[in-house]
Amino acid sequence: MAPSSFRSLDWVDGAVELIDQTVLPQQVKISRIDTVDDMVAAIKRLSVRGAPGLGVAGAFGVALAVKAFGTHGPDLRAAVQALRTARPTAVNLARMVDRTAARVDHGFDAVVAEALAIRDEEITASTAMGVRGADLVESLVKGPVRAMTVCNTGTLATVERGTALAVIHELFERGRLAEALPIETRPLLQGARLTAWELQQIGAPFRLLVDSAGPFVLARGLADVVLAGADRIAANGDTANKIGTFSLALGAAHAGVPMIVVAPESTVDPSTPTGDAIEIEDRGPAEVGGFGSARTAPPGVEAMNPAFDVTPANLISAIVTDRRVIRLDQGETLSSVSPETN
Amino acid sequence: MAPSSFRSLDWVDGAVELIDQTVLPQQVKISRIDTVDDMVAAIKRLSVRGAPGLGVAGAFGVALAVKAFGTHGPDLRAAVQALRTARPTAVNLARMVDRTAARVDHGFDAVVAEALAIRDEEITASTAMGVRGADLVESLVKGPVRAMTVCNTGTLATVERGTALAVIHELFERGRLAEALPIETRPLLQGARLTAWELQQIGAPFRLLVDSAGPFVLARGLADVVLAGADRIAANGDTANKIGTFSLALGAAHAGVPMIVVAPESTVDPSTPTGDAIEIEDRGPAEVGGFGSARTAPPGVEAMNPAFDVTPANLISAIVTDRRVIRLDQGETLSSVSPETN
Repeated sequence: MAPSSFRSLDWVDGAVELIDQTVLPQQVKISRIDTVDDMVAAIKRLSVRGAPGLGVAGAFGVALAVKAFGTHGPDLRAAVQALRTARPTAVNLARMVDRTAARVDHGFDAVVAEALAIRDEEITASTAMGVRGADLVESLVKGPVRAMTVCNTGTLATVERGTALAVIHELFERGRLAEALPIETRPLLQGARLTAWELQQIGAPFRLLVDSAGPFVLARGLADVVLAGADRIAANGDTANKIGTFSLALGAAHAGVPMIVVAPESTVDPSTPTGDAIEIEDRGPAEVGGFGSARTAPPGVEAMNPAFDVTPANLISAIVTDRRVIRLDQGETLSSVSPETN
Repeated sequence: MAPSSFRSLDWVDGAVELIDQTVLPQQVKISRIDTVDDMVAAIKRLSVRGAPGLGVAGAFGVALAVKAFGTHGPDLRAAVQALRTARPTAVNLARMVDRTAARVDHGFDAVVAEALAIRDEEITASTAMGVRGADLVESLVKGPVRAMTVCNTGTLATVERGTALAVIHELFERGRLAEALPIETRPLLQGARLTAWELQQIGAPFRLLVDSAGPFVLARGLADVVLAGADRIAANGDTANKIGTFSLALGAAHAGVPMIVVAPESTVDPSTPTGDAIEIEDRGPAEVGGFGSARTAPPGVEAMNPAFDVTPANLISAIVTDRRVIRLDQGETLSSVSPETN
């Protein structure tokens, strides 16, 4: 019997245990991490990933720092600084390291308590997204649901359950999932490597697709909903997410299928007015010319490799966060629907 | 200096020489084939591919058969039968084997002459598609052209120059190509492996994209035209082609960029009324779970693996064949524009 859910990382007997995502799906390796150096290395080599997962890893890292170096002094300060900058673009990592480090004066137990509180908040948020999203899908789709999704937005991107994949997980537990349809998500193949593995872990039925098959499978009437995560949601609802999200949104609109974005409230960025203001990182040719050590293209090829795309709000049916559902397809906006405070 | 063009296969000093496509782009190996058994094996292992290339390979194969077995007898008949069924779904292979075999009574020289005529007809057709297509693109796009394309539709799918890629080749020779933008074309990666290699051979500038980046690159205004081949064109203009073509067509329509299908006249199938009548082959999970010997997905994953998609005629701006241009965007249809007879 597959477990109903699992965690990507946790605090176990005074140290951190995490699923090493660099060796999935070929190996399932639980790394036990009890020094700050090892935690920084794990963050840098992407053993742990996703904004919520990184935030919790950083918070646990501060607890390891206090255990090793006490509640003050240059070694502690250096350790906290190393954690908060282990991945410079990960805003949530720095934020959660700072939040935990602010408890250092209260001693080790207080620091651990703060880190565990952050972990629990992330799990609560994922659970809320799963429930809100599944309620919405159930209201939009009659009968068993065939749910297409992109990248990895599950446990392995958070702590437990995830964002868009949490909705699929919840639908599965409610007996409403006919099948998940993850796309493989080139170039880094998070769909093939991570989402497929997670769906196997929870025992959910699924079939993997190459990315470009997604829009056509929608056109042939073989999927009922598209569920995607978000890296950033602009004030007008335009959504930056993993490359491939936009093509599924076009396919969903063409097929008349709902396109639903699922992301934590913290992803909404009111200071970004529209998607046009979002600069797209180009990650260079190496990823496009092969997979891991396997080369596909001839040596020396140039590539255009946008890491993200932007889906305009008019192609999005609804945005689901841990605190609200915004029905863009019914004229609601991020400013017209207030987040619930709970 | 790169050659201006080259051939995927040819008749050289009484035998066939072909570029072995199974080892590209890591190796460039010219196979010399002088027996029917070797030709059948080369066809079966996909050393040669594409309807025109297969037709010419089969025709040359009949010449090899006559050289070995003379102009009649059971060995000759068995050899011809083995050639025409080496790939059961390749209609053009059987057709060109039959056409060449019909000359057997006239002796070896007549058979070779027929095979060479077939080769030359294919080259003439590719050249015509390149010129007609480039004329059309020049009329639609001002200034340097950034041309997106899918799969491999070049020399390696034909004998020389190709179909959609022949248009890019012609634009390059006219000094009008800013860059080609091939998508890698999962699962078999013909874009990354073959098209990228061909563009390097002719010295044309290009950047490779992962498939799902195509629609977004179009949306950001970074491409001026999409050029695709076709496996079958229905009477109403709906076009079956490699999976991924439909998503580029959606992207092109969204971006207001012309979507042009380039294929030989023989691809038009008046007996197929619309794309709905086209059954899509599912090639099973093995191709989706990895690349070559490299595995990406966990063991045992199921997949949905449509080999082709169907792009509806209303998403196609024009169809270019070796004998006509049909401007679907101007209300023309396959029955309203007659092929030129030359």
